Amino acid sequence: MLQAVLSKIDAAQEESLEILFRLVKFQSIATDPAFDSECIACAHWLKAHLESFGGRASLHNTTGQPVLLSRWNEGQASLPHVLFYGHYDVQPVDPLNLWATPPFEPRIGKTASGVKAVFGRGAADDKGQLLTFLEAVRAWMAIHGTLPFRLTVLLEGDEEGNSDVLDAFLKEQGAALKADIAMICDTEMWDAKTPAITTSLRGCISEDVVVTGPRLDLHSGYFGGPARNPLKALSSLIAKLHDAKGKVTVPGFYDGVKPVSKAKLANWKRLKLTEKEVLGPIGLKTSAGEKGFTLAEQLWARPTLEVNGFWGGYTGIGGKTVLPAKAQAKFSFRLVEGQKPKKVRAAFRAFMKANLPPDCKISFHSHAGDSTGIAVKEDNPWIAEAATALSEEWGVKTALVGSGVSIPVVECFRKHQKMESLLVGFARFDDAAHSPNEKYDLESFHRGTRSWARLFGSIAKRT
Amino acid sequence: MLQAVLSKIDAAQEESLEILFRLVKFQSIATDPAFDSECIACAHWLKAHLESFGGRASLHNTTGQPVLLSRWNEGQASLPHVLFYGHYDVQPVDPLNLWATPPFEPRIGKTASGVKAVFGRGAADDKGQLLTFLEAVRAWMAIHGTLPFRLTVLLEGDEEGNSDVLDAFLKEQGAALKADIAMICDTEMWDAKTPAITTSLRGCISEDVVVTGPRLDLHSGYFGGPARNPLKALSSLIAKLHDAKGKVTVPGFYDGVKPVSKAKLANWKRLKLTEKEVLGPIGLKTSAGEKGFTLAEQLWARPTLEVNGFWGGYTGIGGKTVLPAKAQAKFSFRLVEGQKPKKVRAAFRAFMKANLPPDCKISFHSHAGDSTGIAVKEDNPWIAEAATALSEEWGVKTALVGSGVSIPVVECFRKHQKMESLLVGFARFDDAAHSPNEKYDLESFHRGTRSWARLFGSIAKRT
Repeated sequence: MLQAVLSKIDAAQEESLEILFRLVKFQSIATDPAFDSECIACAHWLKAHLESFGGRASLHNTTGQPVLLSRWNEGQASLPHVLFYGHYDVQPVDPLNLWATPPFEPRIGKTASGVKAVFGRGAADDKGQLLTFLEAVRAWMAIHGTLPFRLTVLLEGDEEGNSDVLDAFLKEQGAALKADIAMICDTEMWDAKTPAITTSLRGCISEDVVVTGPRLDLHSGYFGGPARNPLKALSSLIAKLHDAKGKVTVPGFYDGVKPVSKAKLANWKRLKLTEKEVLGPIGLKTSAGEKGFTLAEQLWARPTLEVNGFWGGYTGIGGKTVLPAKAQAKFSFRLVEGQKPKKVRAAFRAFMKANLPPDCKISFHSHAGDSTGIAVKEDNPWIAEAATALSEEWGVKTALVGSGVSIPVVECFRKHQKMESLLVGFARFDDAAHSPNEKYDLESFHRGTRSWARLFGSIAKRT
Repeated sequence: MLQAVLSKIDAAQEESLEILFRLVKFQSIATDPAFDSECIACAHWLKAHLESFGGRASLHNTTGQPVLLSRWNEGQASLPHVLFYGHYDVQPVDPLNLWATPPFEPRIGKTASGVKAVFGRGAADDKGQLLTFLEAVRAWMAIHGTLPFRLTVLLEGDEEGNSDVLDAFLKEQGAALKADIAMICDTEMWDAKTPAITTSLRGCISEDVVVTGPRLDLHSGYFGGPARNPLKALSSLIAKLHDAKGKVTVPGFYDGVKPVSKAKLANWKRLKLTEKEVLGPIGLKTSAGEKGFTLAEQLWARPTLEVNGFWGGYTGIGGKTVLPAKAQAKFSFRLVEGQKPKKVRAAFRAFMKANLPPDCKISFHSHAGDSTGIAVKEDNPWIAEAATALSEEWGVKTALVGSGVSIPVVECFRKHQKMESLLVGFARFDDAAHSPNEKYDLESFHRGTRSWARLFGSIAKRT
């Protein structure tokens, strides 16, 4: 049964790429209202696309972008039920000047490592990735006319921005969307040759901070010395957030954080992560993370508190001896299983207020989209089955890894559908997701599609 | 002799304001090459203006904006020789959106304290101020046809930017520009009712700093923890520059700084400076300056190290979980007599390098225009004469005060012309020099002009 599908996938490569190109051309930046119509058009195109190979598709209004649901083998209760999740929205494209070609004009080019890839915003995250699954379904349907499992596809448009939108939708749907497993294709391979299943994720919350001092910008000659400088005040606050060992000093920040299980640690140890390998490509040598933890723990199992941007005062050409009235910064926090976003946020605010120098005021603004850290249970049988399918396709043992990024939907599925997730993805660490010149290797796309087909084949054998 | 001049000044107020308006309309921002033609036009207009009341004026090319020289009673060696200095360039106008009306469209309006003032960039600093002297000369010439002293007027166009330009010019001129005293109108009154002579100034140097870490912007999910964050690194450096008592921690920073003389301290004590009075109007309560020093010392006799601006990472709307490759800041230092700008700069750079976290690089860029701190000798007879003239005009005792700002030309006159300076000005602390909505009170303009006329009258009596 499987071989015909794999051959079909091989033969349809050109067609698959055309579909990916069409999808990347939608400028579906959900965080910018200027692109709302692009998001909606993208959702409509995907609906028609899923219907073209047998899906019963429907669009659902939300407080954000539309959610697309599509079903195969509906009501066949004897079959295992898989929910596949992907997102059709993409990251903003700035800084635009660093793109070699326009972000929404996909093209095939060579990567720095000399392999062919599709370049464009969303080529990997998540349009290329979600299509690996959908192309496997399309091929299976073409050969067999039906799937060996019940399938619900859920594609959302607010992943890069406001994860509250999907949270509300999933809450409303509740048990109606419960499947045996949620399959998510939004993660990376371990390396160019090794497929991976991700079993832990960090959550994310963010905070904007404004520190004000004098009621107006001052001349440093007249007031320098006695006048409180908000740039200095904010710098001092930022400096105080970590101790000399890289540990976050905010009281309560680590509440609920548990040590990584021995089994997982052993698993991670086998991956032989080195500073040279992880930090070398980004131009660094020494980890700035928490002392006393392995690199894998620092990346996947320890929470962080980062400043993502700061600004204030004079930033133009030349000098200006100003003592500004205001300084601003953007923070985000990577959270791990056990931490409560609301408690962490409250602890951060309390710390910043408590350490604020005299004569300063501080205000906070939260962006929507809190997510918690997740540790997926490794004894889930779907993990073993997927690991085998992946190993068969790639010819090496599948790595069970952690990830430092947030995939908030995993938490939502747990909360509202009591459903665990299987995180399989074919992105590479050099894909530049969220950066200029994002790309998705042709090999990821093609063998990713084949990998899903193999998993379908495995399910078919037991049903 | 004096009374007729004072009456002339009173009668000519409308005309004086027209001249000030014309001068403010020139967009003479010397630090931005886009405004070069405005600076040159301003210098030419001033030349013609000085010629209109008897000056023998000439423009001199420099490496920056033209210097205007104009002479009265040239070669009359028996008369005392006064050099008057002012600058026709102005500060940049950003942030433009905070101006109530366009900065180069002068208008008369009411200040927060309810008095009439001219609003516009440069209305006080230094166009209004320099015109107080020139209007006094114009009135004296109108009544008497000649001045009771030799006068050289020197107006430059690089005061707000590169003070090296005038330094080179004065060095080249040498003794040819030596007068008995340099009169400078670029300082403030003590308060709305009390005229002041400034007898100490702080110098200024500046440094731009760039801290880099990773070779590209990173996703905080993938690299947060191990990756060095340059925003954090720069914040920590800024935080380390001062100790808990407000003292600069850079080794060697205070080298050469001497305690203020007992006489001067006693003088300053009489001024009864309070935090409420100094900091209240700018929205602050407690001095952030060095513990163990009076407010007057902190403002006028203690050096500072300030951050004037910082920026880096994502600063747009919403959140972006980026760990940026670069962070930048602008610093300036207020120096006092005894400190050597080059040594202070070297000490700062050494400190920043020594405290730089691993895996970061730092680079420095200096703006031209170093100036040293100055303490003017108070036993200069011109100070006594000017103090009397000012007291007569304003009806209260003249205050002998310090100032925290830099007037680099005072040092240049000392160095190249062996000439001391008399610093008399009529600006107010609420003039918003260097800030949006700069203004100059009509009373400052009118009675400032009368004050200079009184000093001329005093000189006339003794010659």
